[in-house]
Formats: sequence, C-alpha cells, structure tokens
Amino acid sequence: MTDEPTPGMTLEEIDTPDVIVDLDVVEANIRRAQAVAEGVGARLMPHIKTSKSPYVAALQLAAGAAGITVAKLGEAEVFHAHGLGPILIAYPLVGAAKLSRLRTLLEAGAQLSIALDSVAVASPIAALARSLGVRMPVWLEVDTGNHRLGVDPMEAVATCAALAGLEGIEVQGFMSYGGHVNAGKDAAERARIVRDEVGLLRRLAGEAQAAGIARSLGVNVGGTLHLMFPDELAGVTVLRPGTYVYNDRMVVAGGAARIEDCAAQVLTQVVSRPSPDRAIVDAGTKTFAADPIQRPGLTGYGTVVGHPELELYRLQEEHGFIRILDPGAQLRVGDRLRIVPNHVCSMMNLHDRVVGVRQGRVERLLPVAARGRIR
Amino acid sequence: MTDEPTPGMTLEEIDTPDVIVDLDVVEANIRRAQAVAEGVGARLMPHIKTSKSPYVAALQLAAGAAGITVAKLGEAEVFHAHGLGPILIAYPLVGAAKLSRLRTLLEAGAQLSIALDSVAVASPIAALARSLGVRMPVWLEVDTGNHRLGVDPMEAVATCAALAGLEGIEVQGFMSYGGHVNAGKDAAERARIVRDEVGLLRRLAGEAQAAGIARSLGVNVGGTLHLMFPDELAGVTVLRPGTYVYNDRMVVAGGAARIEDCAAQVLTQVVSRPSPDRAIVDAGTKTFAADPIQRPGLTGYGTVVGHPELELYRLQEEHGFIRILDPGAQLRVGDRLRIVPNHVCSMMNLHDRVVGVRQGRVERLLPVAARGRIR
Repeated sequence: MTDEPTPGMTLEEIDTPDVIVDLDVVEANIRRAQAVAEGVGARLMPHIKTSKSPYVAALQLAAGAAGITVAKLGEAEVFHAHGLGPILIAYPLVGAAKLSRLRTLLEAGAQLSIALDSVAVASPIAALARSLGVRMPVWLEVDTGNHRLGVDPMEAVATCAALAGLEGIEVQGFMSYGGHVNAGKDAAERARIVRDEVGLLRRLAGEAQAAGIARSLGVNVGGTLHLMFPDELAGVTVLRPGTYVYNDRMVVAGGAARIEDCAAQVLTQVVSRPSPDRAIVDAGTKTFAADPIQRPGLTGYGTVVGHPELELYRLQEEHGFIRILDPGAQLRVGDRLRIVPNHVCSMMNLHDRVVGVRQGRVERLLPVAARGRIR
Repeated sequence: MTDEPTPGMTLEEIDTPDVIVDLDVVEANIRRAQAVAEGVGARLMPHIKTSKSPYVAALQLAAGAAGITVAKLGEAEVFHAHGLGPILIAYPLVGAAKLSRLRTLLEAGAQLSIALDSVAVASPIAALARSLGVRMPVWLEVDTGNHRLGVDPMEAVATCAALAGLEGIEVQGFMSYGGHVNAGKDAAERARIVRDEVGLLRRLAGEAQAAGIARSLGVNVGGTLHLMFPDELAGVTVLRPGTYVYNDRMVVAGGAARIEDCAAQVLTQVVSRPSPDRAIVDAGTKTFAADPIQRPGLTGYGTVVGHPELELYRLQEEHGFIRILDPGAQLRVGDRLRIVPNHVCSMMNLHDRVVGVRQGRVERLLPVAARGRIR
C-alpha cells in the first residue's frame, strides 16, 4: 500500500499527487486574522470548513479565537470529540435524526449555538431545549444580498420577535454570509458591499432592541475577504472567516492574500508529454476538486508556483492538463510541480490527511478529521 | 454520531443528505453492457472509477466481464486485495515509489497490464519485469482526438516498435480514450467519432503487425457512449466503459441512458425557503461534486427526479440552490427530493459508503473502498 510521508522527509521524497500544508504559513495566517478581529473588537470564530482539522483549529483557539464555526452537525461532533469549542453550527438543523444527535451533543456538554432562518426550523429546536431545561443560543440569518439562506431583511425583525417568543430559544443577534462580496469588481466595491451588509445588520439589531425584543443583539458576519476591510467592520461582534487559514487562488484573486500566503498546495508530477505545448500531471479533480475560479478574466484550475509559463487549463478525474506557453520550457516525465488550488475548502474534503511541512520538510500528517461530514 | 441506514429501512427513514444506489438498476445496466460487448465480440473490462466498489465489480465479473480497469495503482491494490482481477492499470506509472508498489503487487500474484504512452515510462517498468523474470503486458495509448494522454498517431507504430524492443515488455496493442465523443453534437456525429477512433487503432495494429512488430495486436477503447454504437466497434478486442454501471446526467444528455437508468441519486431535504422562487437543500458540492454539465444548452448540477418544475441551478459546499419554476409548487422545509448528479464518478469519490437500495428499501451499505486512492 501507499508509503506515507514521515517526519523529516523532503518534498522530493513525497510520492505524488499529494497535498502539502506549510505550517509556518498557516501560523502567520492565523496571527494576521486574529489581529484584525482584535482591532475590530470582534470575537473570531473561524469556520473549520477549510482545514476540517482539529490540529489547526487548536492553533486558532490558542491564538485567541473565541470558538469555532461549523456547517454541519457531523463536524460539530468531530470537533467536540477533540475537546474544541464553543461551536456555532451555522446551518439549519432539520429532522428527527439531527435533533436526536443534537440532544446527544448537548447532553455531552457541548457549548453550541445554531444559525437558522425560520420559525419552522427553530420550533423543534426550542422544544428540545425545553425538554433539557436549557435555552439554545440562536442567530437569525438574514439575506444581505448573497441570496443563499436568510430571511428577507424586511421580515427580519418580525422573525426575530417570533424566535424570541419561543421558549427555549435565546436570540443572539443577526447573522449573514456576505459571499456576494466576491462579485465586487474592485476593492472599493467590495468595501461598499461589506459596509452595506454590516450597516443593515446593525440597523436590524438596533430596531429589534428598540422594540424590546432583546436587550443586546450581536452582529455576526463571515468571509475571508471581509478581513481586508476592518474599517467597515465596526460594530461587528462575531467574525467567522474560514479560508484565510490556508488561502487559495480565489482569495488571491480577491486581493486578500498573496500566492506565498497560500499554505496548501498540490504536489504533482508530469506523467506524459504528449505534445510540445502540453503536459499531463497526475493530479485531477480527485486531488483538486472541480471548482472553477469564478472571477472575470481568470480561467483554469490552479496557479503553478514559480512557473508563469505553465497553465493548468483543464482537469479530469486523474489528469491535470498543463499548457506550456513558452516553447523553450523544459518539462519532462517525472518533473514535479507545486500548484495552488482554486478552492482549498473543496480540495481538503477529498483527502483523509494532508502533509504538514515546514521549511521544506515533513513535520506531521494532518488528519482531515471532519472530511465528508455532510450530515 | 450519524445513525447509519440499516437493511429494511425505507428511503424516508434515511437521514439527508445521502447517496442511494438502486441495485436493480445497477444489475440491469451491467447486463445491458455485457450484452453489447458480447455482440461485438470484445472482452469487457469495466473501469471501476465509477463505483470504486468491490461489491459492484464482483457483480460485473460474475456477469461475464473479463477483468477490470483502474486509473491508479492504489485502486489496483484495493481491488486485488478483494480478489478481483485481472486488472488493467490505464495510467502511466512514474517514479520509484510506484515501481516499488507495482513490484509488491506482482509478487502477490496480481494479474496486471498497464497502459502508457512513452518509452520513458515503459523503461523502468521493463527493468522491473526483467528483475522478476516476467514480461509486463502493455497497451500503447494513442491520442485519437481527445488530446489528453497518448502518442501522436503519426508516431504510434514507431513507439510500438520501441516498446516491443524493450525486454520485459509484451505489447498488447493500441488503446485510446475517446472522450471527445462527448463533444459530438448528435448521434450521427458521435458514431462517426467512434468509427474514426476504432478505424485508426485498427489501421495502426495492422501496420504494426505487417511490420513484424508483434504477431497479434488488440484494439482497446473506453467510454459509456461507445456502447451506443456497436456497429462501429467491429474489431475492438477490449471495451472498458465505466459510467454505464450507474449512469448520470451527462450520460443521459449524451443519449446513452434514460433518467430511470441512473442508479445513483442524492437524497436531500429542504432546509430553507428564503423566497417564493428559491429553496435551499442540504446537499452541495461536498455531496454532488462541482462538475458542470458540459453540454451545450444544459445548465445546473442535477436532475430533480419527478419534478420538472425544480432546477438545481447552483451548488456551494453544503448548499444546493433550487429554482422553483412553477409559482404554485408546494415545497416546505423538511420536504425530500431525489437528484441525479451531473457526474457520478466524481460524486462517488466524496463518500466513504453509499446506500444500496432495492424497491425502495435499504438492502446493504456499499463501501466505496477505493475512494480517494489517487496514488
């Protein structure tokens, strides 16, 4: 079976394809985001969807994070089992099976809060909380322009009042995922989108407080690009970015990181040189994930580090297609490349473990412990 | 932790999101492909990249398949460990780590053949074979128009001669992956692409035999769409389609299956109804994979079974975005949908096990034993 990398190995000794994570870069990324959150006066609750790694989450908590954010209950189970929390489950929990597991987690002492966007989802959670004699902290998700989850802002205060009226629910405030900041065409437009998002949530919190719905309501926003705009984050009480811990080609395209801040890279090898302008490497969608770059003017599936003359222009399951722009470039079967992926969170979900490296040598394997926890 | 489905459960009792595989449909798909191969007089060596399941491969072999095809050495290891073979590794094996594992597999008695497209890749394999006192069966991959791997047809006979000259290599014939058949705009054009591919490989085999390079050389082609054109497959000695065993939205779009022939479906649940024309379900790219449909005129990420008024128009990691085309459609939080994915092979690579069902009840869990075997 596969020979696993062991501490002290050089990158050349790691078989391909594989995913390496530079721990020096990870630690610098963690420090930078923590400093932004502290400057803003917000609690940082990083979303673990990026690393899915208890080791990395423990680094984030040790650096000052106030807790972690997860998408799915199964992720909460994994991180709680590793002693990590408090945990915000930023996803509506629906159905008897999930409520039963939520009960088990609460009975095991997990410190949880939940984000949701309807009374339909909140009511069974409230009933569970009452049966346990507790109040469940809940964030109300508002659609501030991303058009994914979230109540219409026009209905947000009324829904907040309805939630606050459910015995067993303790409303924490208003939350949004401002993913539409990615569509901003430049830094000024992105700053405006963040300003509008935060402004809207603050206004809702003020209105709900003025209406006596709750004494103190917070404002909770996510997103790595948000960290670029600390001036727009005044009044935010919780920040829950995820991707910043590793970064990727999307974040670089958005201006929130440099390519050298991208901690996670694919290590791959040329297996064929079928034509003068094409090489095939041994990493495809099963290594990178198939996420497109989704940024005007950019194409392809990754940035080949140190090789501007090479473009990863297509992926199939086990094949990466490299276009060689410089006819004089030497590239032979067996040559190795390092490639920053478009979307590192999706990539991590493909791998049971990645290889933690420092200064070009293997330090430790990082189990992607919450990989595949979709329920 | 997650409650796993158990035999006898109904689909309503399975928590979401999950992947169900209808075993009646699988068995019918296997019988149909086997009949095509037998009609053509070719050996069927199904590519296991689709199911990645030893249970399913055993069904294919029991139905008459002559062996299996894999992409990566790690997949060969998993299937050999389950006693399944002979195995064609349809991928160039490069580097000392892989050669060492190839040796281990051969010493364990695995019946292997390998596809490759260069003397650079073949030479170390030949040396390994000589050291073991065996001859390694090798297929030479030719680029018949798909522009992935494969030697230029103009160089194919010369490369074949060079391979045949390597002691330790036994050339089996010419192979291609005619994935460009997917770009054919209608059945007639697809038939022509298959005809050209097979014709080219047969001509190369004839020329190489006439030149005395080998006495008998085979023709080896892959692809589920190829099964639609048995009249174009005369002279093919090995067929290695993969996706037919489950089928997916791409295969349906290509005309090689009906939606009811799609064995693998995502079971998902509405978690939010944020606006009258939008529902969010609990399955995103971590359940479906992000593969686009890649077919002119088609968009989206899956077909919602039995609901032409619903479109899965976008995926994010844990979110499926459903557009509701009929304003009168009832769709509530907790409602369940079944969705056929764009690309079932990529989807299978996300799941440690899927749920085998028959007549609406769980029969068995199917471990996706070769999931993630990228090396």
